[in-house]
Amino acid sequence: MFWHDFDNIIWGDLMQNTQFQFSKLAGKLKSSMIRELLKYANVPGAISFGGGTPDPETFPRHELAQIAKEIIENEYKYTLQYSVTEGDPELIKQILILLKRVYDIDRLSNENVLITVGSQQALELVGKVLIDPGDYVIVGDPEYLGALSAFRMRDTQFLVVKFDDDGPDIDMVKQKIKQLDDSGQIEYLKFIYVVSNFQNPSGITTSLEKRKALVEIAEQYDLLIVEDDPYGVLRFKGEMLPSLMKIGGVERVVLLNTFSKILCPGLRIGMIVADKPIIRKLVLAKQGTDLCSPSLTMRLTARYLERYDVLEQIKPAIDLYRKKKDTMVKALEENFSDIIGAKWTNPEGGLFVWFTLPKSFDTMEMFRFAEENKVFYIPGEAFKPFEEPSSSMRMSFCLPSIEDIHEGVKRLRDAFDKYRSYKGL
Amino acid sequence: MFWHDFDNIIWGDLMQNTQFQFSKLAGKLKSSMIRELLKYANVPGAISFGGGTPDPETFPRHELAQIAKEIIENEYKYTLQYSVTEGDPELIKQILILLKRVYDIDRLSNENVLITVGSQQALELVGKVLIDPGDYVIVGDPEYLGALSAFRMRDTQFLVVKFDDDGPDIDMVKQKIKQLDDSGQIEYLKFIYVVSNFQNPSGITTSLEKRKALVEIAEQYDLLIVEDDPYGVLRFKGEMLPSLMKIGGVERVVLLNTFSKILCPGLRIGMIVADKPIIRKLVLAKQGTDLCSPSLTMRLTARYLERYDVLEQIKPAIDLYRKKKDTMVKALEENFSDIIGAKWTNPEGGLFVWFTLPKSFDTMEMFRFAEENKVFYIPGEAFKPFEEPSSSMRMSFCLPSIEDIHEGVKRLRDAFDKYRSYKGL
Repeated sequence: MFWHDFDNIIWGDLMQNTQFQFSKLAGKLKSSMIRELLKYANVPGAISFGGGTPDPETFPRHELAQIAKEIIENEYKYTLQYSVTEGDPELIKQILILLKRVYDIDRLSNENVLITVGSQQALELVGKVLIDPGDYVIVGDPEYLGALSAFRMRDTQFLVVKFDDDGPDIDMVKQKIKQLDDSGQIEYLKFIYVVSNFQNPSGITTSLEKRKALVEIAEQYDLLIVEDDPYGVLRFKGEMLPSLMKIGGVERVVLLNTFSKILCPGLRIGMIVADKPIIRKLVLAKQGTDLCSPSLTMRLTARYLERYDVLEQIKPAIDLYRKKKDTMVKALEENFSDIIGAKWTNPEGGLFVWFTLPKSFDTMEMFRFAEENKVFYIPGEAFKPFEEPSSSMRMSFCLPSIEDIHEGVKRLRDAFDKYRSYKGL
Repeated sequence: MFWHDFDNIIWGDLMQNTQFQFSKLAGKLKSSMIRELLKYANVPGAISFGGGTPDPETFPRHELAQIAKEIIENEYKYTLQYSVTEGDPELIKQILILLKRVYDIDRLSNENVLITVGSQQALELVGKVLIDPGDYVIVGDPEYLGALSAFRMRDTQFLVVKFDDDGPDIDMVKQKIKQLDDSGQIEYLKFIYVVSNFQNPSGITTSLEKRKALVEIAEQYDLLIVEDDPYGVLRFKGEMLPSLMKIGGVERVVLLNTFSKILCPGLRIGMIVADKPIIRKLVLAKQGTDLCSPSLTMRLTARYLERYDVLEQIKPAIDLYRKKKDTMVKALEENFSDIIGAKWTNPEGGLFVWFTLPKSFDTMEMFRFAEENKVFYIPGEAFKPFEEPSSSMRMSFCLPSIEDIHEGVKRLRDAFDKYRSYKGL
């Protein structure tokens, strides 16, 4: 009898019965709150503002199906074989074209790009190559959860700056850096991380003025900036601002991006654009991490980009998201305008509205009232670099229908009222 | 002018001109010797025994092309969307069936399996979850390079045991463990790593007796065994031995595997089979590492396995590899039998022959003579846990033709003669 079923043995028991130990890193790993909370969102009749996944109806499935068949038949020596660690050169070629079109960034070559398995791997590799345990990184409050998880795995110390309506609080950035400099620890500050357009979770875009200020600070202290821009192309109105990389140059800024939002997430194509010596190190780190990305998904993306204009293809999706965002903002106005201190962002693009209740409320505490009403959101606490309560929530408008957005916000108001009377406020 | 071209700026210059620092981990990352050496192998007329990549003509491209088209058209809500971190449940279902067929391992459930991006990611995640910096892991000499790279990223201390003709030297395993135990450091020994069938690079299969001995030792000291078996199914002759997991059970052995060798590498489908609490931690580590594997490649593999018998499909490839291996062994006999002290393995499966010259020779030093003769191999030094010269080389027989194997071994003999007279031996 070799096999035992551990179904009934819980974690703690296993640990008692054996000397066997996990690493300290494993001890710190926790399931993301989003992941845990979204398990509730599958109940019948539920309306979820939780997930940040794009609408699958926006994916160009017929085109991708046709191309996939062709490239497996005809390019099988590439698509079914190991690739080089750097990524498919055909895809990098297309990415260089897009960098020029989207960001007006040129003079880059293949050695400035690494293809990753989604932008989560980009974040993880950046952490490996730049961060030693105990090093500092400047992040926002709130901040993108995936970045926090990736950097936490490197035992990063977060210097947290408030994220205002127009991006990071620049005075706080300066103050945090000055404190480090005064205490002789500036060398341990590795970079400033910022999601520059329609930040996840807040929907906020960093203003041109603040972009310039961040680059100036980075130059003054010889720091890197890691700019993450998965949503920039999903702009509903207004003009795109120059990226931090455009302002600061490739020697100052590392740019992360992904095709998950403008093409589809299932191919897991992310990228890092950076100075060549940094890419070289990242390639080595990826070699030990997963050897190479799947050739098939890289070549599929490359051939798609070659044949179709992804920036045109995404336009109907952007129109749809604009309508849904407008609906959500209108529903919030209709349902929460009477609540003094309640406010919400009105993003010019992206997938998220950031909805903040008056300070005395805690959206994690309110979650069970929302759950009873079958409406789901992500409590702001999930996006705090340090564990602390939050009166905000992230509300994604990309997946629910127009009708469900109306209905969901109504349910949310009802949940809020129940929570408010429970709190006796 | 935002952009500067760093083409002419070398690494060292950049480091002098800036305070900017890579992490200590990045400082240690080196390009793999295989990667560097294989750059030479592309010269016209070269015969390469270097790479370990399967023959693309063995990949079922028509079947995969058809399925890919269908699942993108019809299952786009899954194939083009984010997946769960654990991996495609449809693929896990198929893997459980294969575990039963190949290893006679059953009573496992979905929670015992994690899908990874190739087995390199499996190794990396195992490192993250089990190894703290400074911890010990028992590895072989020679050892699979990908495992060494993954564990090095965790600052592992290697306890190296000789790999005999029938697997790890058991006395050395016992002795190394006893030394740790005597010095009160046994708690820092995390696992024994072993490629159980047709090891890369040596082609050696660990005997049943040694498998049992390893499990006994692991039980005695309450250690884990990490069994890596990418080649087990590629058996030319004889019966498959019970896997370490079959002998030791899922609570004692973590099993790594991949579809790279029996289906194709371009989909990058690896897996970890382990006790549920370990899988749970690995899932959390993967969440921060790349969120999830590509849904498309996972579902493509699942539907392929559902419709076709992969163990039947691989048979022509196994026949081909058997012939090529026989050719290589014969060519070595014909060309090197007169060299006293020269020896080579005659593997019962897998992709590699391990060819050892008399002790006074160094296959790295000999490499330039081989290069002149346009024949390539991987010097044994690449597979040493610590940097030291080796008189062995890894010779892969899977890609070159029968004729090229004959011709290549002849060239190798000529290179050897030139090297021998250069050495004055």
